[in-house]
Amino acid sequence: MKAIVLESAENPIVYKEVDKPTPGPGEVLVQVKAAALNRRDYWITVGKYAGIKYPTIFGADGAGIVTEAGEGAGDWLNKEVLINPSHNWGDHDDFQSKDFKILGLPDDGTLAEYVLVKAEYLYPKPAHLNWEQAAALPLAGLTAYRALFTKARLKKGDKVLIVGVGAGTGTFLLQWAVAAGAQVFVTSGTAEKIEQAKLLGAFAGVNYKEQDWAEQLTKLAGGFDIVVDSALGPDFNKIPDLCNPGGRIVFFGGTAGNIPELNGRPIFWKQLQILGTTMGTQAEFKAMLEFVATHQIVPVIDEVFPLAEAAKAFAKMENSKQFGKLIVKM
Amino acid sequence: MKAIVLESAENPIVYKEVDKPTPGPGEVLVQVKAAALNRRDYWITVGKYAGIKYPTIFGADGAGIVTEAGEGAGDWLNKEVLINPSHNWGDHDDFQSKDFKILGLPDDGTLAEYVLVKAEYLYPKPAHLNWEQAAALPLAGLTAYRALFTKARLKKGDKVLIVGVGAGTGTFLLQWAVAAGAQVFVTSGTAEKIEQAKLLGAFAGVNYKEQDWAEQLTKLAGGFDIVVDSALGPDFNKIPDLCNPGGRIVFFGGTAGNIPELNGRPIFWKQLQILGTTMGTQAEFKAMLEFVATHQIVPVIDEVFPLAEAAKAFAKMENSKQFGKLIVKM
Repeated sequence: MKAIVLESAENPIVYKEVDKPTPGPGEVLVQVKAAALNRRDYWITVGKYAGIKYPTIFGADGAGIVTEAGEGAGDWLNKEVLINPSHNWGDHDDFQSKDFKILGLPDDGTLAEYVLVKAEYLYPKPAHLNWEQAAALPLAGLTAYRALFTKARLKKGDKVLIVGVGAGTGTFLLQWAVAAGAQVFVTSGTAEKIEQAKLLGAFAGVNYKEQDWAEQLTKLAGGFDIVVDSALGPDFNKIPDLCNPGGRIVFFGGTAGNIPELNGRPIFWKQLQILGTTMGTQAEFKAMLEFVATHQIVPVIDEVFPLAEAAKAFAKMENSKQFGKLIVKM
Repeated sequence: MKAIVLESAENPIVYKEVDKPTPGPGEVLVQVKAAALNRRDYWITVGKYAGIKYPTIFGADGAGIVTEAGEGAGDWLNKEVLINPSHNWGDHDDFQSKDFKILGLPDDGTLAEYVLVKAEYLYPKPAHLNWEQAAALPLAGLTAYRALFTKARLKKGDKVLIVGVGAGTGTFLLQWAVAAGAQVFVTSGTAEKIEQAKLLGAFAGVNYKEQDWAEQLTKLAGGFDIVVDSALGPDFNKIPDLCNPGGRIVFFGGTAGNIPELNGRPIFWKQLQILGTTMGTQAEFKAMLEFVATHQIVPVIDEVFPLAEAAKAFAKMENSKQFGKLIVKM
C-alpha cells in the first residue's frame, strides 16, 4: 500500500510503498478514504516532538471503511467509520495515563491507504458529513471539545475569546462555542481569517498584530468568561486583565512561546483559572460526535490534497496560511 | 471604647478612645473578646492595599458576645459568636461580587472593644475553642478551606505541598489537609517552622533557602496532587514540574513577587490547573466550622497581645517570625 512515511530526520516526508498490515485479535484494518493533518504532524517533521521513532506512518485523523476484522473485533466489517486517535487514555478523566499515545506516532497512522486500529477506537462516521469532513474532526475537534466543555465548562451566553483562529483547533473552538450559544470573539494575524471567522458565527475579531489589540477587545466585549490561547508568548500577559471574575483560561500548546511573567493579583482576586488540557477521553470523543450531529456542524476544510502530494499540505501548514483543516484524500 | 485605628499613612497604628457604635436594623454589637491579625492588616499599615480609607478600625477576625441587637437581628443577644469577615460575597460561588468587602476596611473592624456587624455574618463560637482560638479562625481558615476543598478538590490520600508554612493561612492549610487525610509536605525558611509543622502532622519539610529544595521534594514525595503557593516569585517556576498529572496549583497572594515565566508544556501535557482564590462564601464558612468541630481542630496561636499593645503584633508580622496566628485579647 502507499503511505506517507517519517523515514528519518533528513527525509521526514516520504511517499512510498509499504506492507499492508494484518489485523490481530481486537483489531481492524480500515481502508482510509480521507485523513487530516494536525500541527503535531508538522512538529514531528521538524524534530520538535517527544518520542520520535523512525520509520512511522504519519496521521492521527482518518475516516474510512473497515475491510478486515480480527477475532473479537465486533461487527464493524464493511462499516463506514471514524477513528478516535486518543489511545490508552487510562482510568482518570482528569489526565491521560503514562501509556497514552496518539495515533500516528509511535503506531502507524492514517496517511496511508490502510491503517490498523483497535476496534474500541472506532465510531460510526457522522451521517451528514462526507469523507473529508469526517476526517477533519478527530484530534482537533476532540481537543477543542475538552478545552471548552470539560475544562472551561462553557455555558450559553458566555463570552469566549479564541486567540489565533486560523488553524484546525481554532475553527473547531469557534464552531463548538457558537453552536453552544456563546458569544465568540477571535484574534488573528490577518483580516481575511477574521472575516472567515465571522462567517462561521464569530461576533467580532481583532488583529493581534495591532498594538492595541487588547484594548480593542475590551471595548468590543467588556470582558471574557473563557479565553482559549494556545499561542502563549509575550502577549499572554494581557489575558488575565481581559477576563471577567471567575474566568477560565485554557491552553493546549504554546506556538508563540512560554507563559510570560504574570502579575498574580488579578488572577487570585478575580479567581481566574489557568487550565492546561490535551486531546480527550473516549467519552468526550463520543460526546463530541453527538454534539456535531445535534447541531449538524460541518467542519471547515481549507484544502484537499491527494496522498502522493501530502508534502504540499505540510508545507502549507508550516506557513500557517490555512483556515480550517488540511485534508489528504486517498 | 478603645480601638486600634488606621489614622493616617504616617500614623497607621493608633491605640485610642473612639465612639462605641449603635446597631441599626439587622445589625448587632459584639463585645470583642479576642481578635486576630492577618497579613492584610500589615499590607494596610504600609499602604499596599487597594481602597485604603482613613480613619478605619483594623481587624477582620473576632469572637465575642452580642451585647446589643438592632431590630430584626434575630435572637443573638448574649450569645457567644464568631464573625465571618467575608461580606457581600454575592450570588456567584465562583467569584465575589463587586460589592464584596472584608471586615476591617472599609468598615470598622474587630481590633476594638466592640464591633458592629450584620447579624447574617454571625456563627456560634465553636464549643471546643477558647476566645483566642476561635478568633484565629475566620479569614485565614476560610481562605485555606476554599483553596483546598472548593478549588483544589482535596481528597483523602492526596499529596499536598504547602509552600511557606509559617503564617496563619499556612498552619490552617496544614491542619485542614492533615485532618482530611492528605499526606502533607511543607517548605519554610527555617528549620524550627518545619519541626513545628511536623508536630501538626506534616509528613516532611524542606528549607526553601537550600538550592536543591525542589529536588529534595521530588525525592521525598515523588510528585504532588496539590500545591498551595501564595509566595509566587522566581521559585514558582519549579512548581509545575513538581506536580503529578492532573495536579492543582492554588494561590491567594504573592508575597515573593509575580508568577515567573513558565514553560507551558508540562502544564498542558500534565493537564495542570493554576487556580486563583480568595476568602470564601457563607456556605464555605459554615462548612469550615463544621469541619473544625468534626475534627476537633485547635488553631495554632503564636502569641497573644493586649489590645493596647497591638502594634507589637504588627511588628512581629512584619518580620514573619510567627508560627500560627497573632491574637489580640481585650
